[in-house]
Amino acid sequence: MELQELLKWRYATKAMNGQKVDKEKVERILEAIRFAPSSNGVQPYELIVVTNPELRAKLRPVCNNQSVVTDSSHLVVFAAWENITEEHINNVLNDVLDERGNYPGVDDFRAYLLQTYRSQSTDQNFIHAARQAYIGLGFGLLAGANEGVDTTPMEGFDPAAVDEVLGLREKGLKSVLMMAIGYRDVEKDWLVNMKKVRRPNASFITELY
Amino acid sequence: MELQELLKWRYATKAMNGQKVDKEKVERILEAIRFAPSSNGVQPYELIVVTNPELRAKLRPVCNNQSVVTDSSHLVVFAAWENITEEHINNVLNDVLDERGNYPGVDDFRAYLLQTYRSQSTDQNFIHAARQAYIGLGFGLLAGANEGVDTTPMEGFDPAAVDEVLGLREKGLKSVLMMAIGYRDVEKDWLVNMKKVRRPNASFITELY
Repeated sequence: MELQELLKWRYATKAMNGQKVDKEKVERILEAIRFAPSSNGVQPYELIVVTNPELRAKLRPVCNNQSVVTDSSHLVVFAAWENITEEHINNVLNDVLDERGNYPGVDDFRAYLLQTYRSQSTDQNFIHAARQAYIGLGFGLLAGANEGVDTTPMEGFDPAAVDEVLGLREKGLKSVLMMAIGYRDVEKDWLVNMKKVRRPNASFITELY
Repeated sequence: MELQELLKWRYATKAMNGQKVDKEKVERILEAIRFAPSSNGVQPYELIVVTNPELRAKLRPVCNNQSVVTDSSHLVVFAAWENITEEHINNVLNDVLDERGNYPGVDDFRAYLLQTYRSQSTDQNFIHAARQAYIGLGFGLLAGANEGVDTTPMEGFDPAAVDEVLGLREKGLKSVLMMAIGYRDVEKDWLVNMKKVRRPNASFITELY
């Protein structure tokens, strides 16, 4: 499908029918998120892919009882690093060096990253990390549509309660977003036949030429 | 091109050659951003598309002197609403009513939105608004690649200075992101031939099944 058609085909699916999505499709969607860019290439967030039924049953009540939490095929939780530490930066740069070999400027880049994230508070680093996850979400939503798979982007949940159910804080993570992956239930989804509405060009875009 | 190829083809272009991008391509890229989803469909940010050379010359020094600020074809500034007000919400819902006509639940939805954003501080609403712009960035970057056009996502600028140059605060806006649109300068771009590196699956993705 053309991108313009994908943009119109996709929507925030409100009811899913429980059908499983093929492993290969899910892998390509997750791969698109992994390939999304992030500030300085740090990728300061992680994906928790929940298929376990007991965990999803525990999550649903702390996600405003949204049915896709249990009726999707895969529930992807985007969890941002609660801070960006020296250990994180060294891990990222070790991966870069493994792939590229040593290259001119890498030491300066390491020093710049350490200085940048040390000079910001933990809160500032978390705000920064959380924002990067949203770029990944954008890539994931389009990749889903490209596979003919429905997705639901979700912010409407209690992050602290989700962190508790998934044991995220022990891993230095805080949930910021979810994306359910599955197939729409056309009978039950009140949104499926609603016209898609966006702010008009005139109020959304200003040209300074 | 297949999405998997677009993901590998695109990169954060560090040098552009000044070549203009066709109007139709730019329009399709901006349209993809306009079609990106946002929390509650509010789209609490706007795009400022800067082609004016004087303005771009003023912006470059407050953008870490990044060359793409002046050498791109179009510079798109993502500016988030500094607050989410009753007027904003009523405007959004008026657009929805224009397109869909009156529908059951719209009054409850209006009350819910007003209550939600009133109960949050201005700072919380801005943090929320800024995050939505990053979903749009994700859509814009993939739409650019789909047009065979290079893009540069940028956070490395002085937001207050950019707001000043573009007169954003008078409009209730604060710059959060930029995306340069143009064509790579293969001779001058140090990144163009570097291998793309991402965090490995094992550290980026956890499955709970």
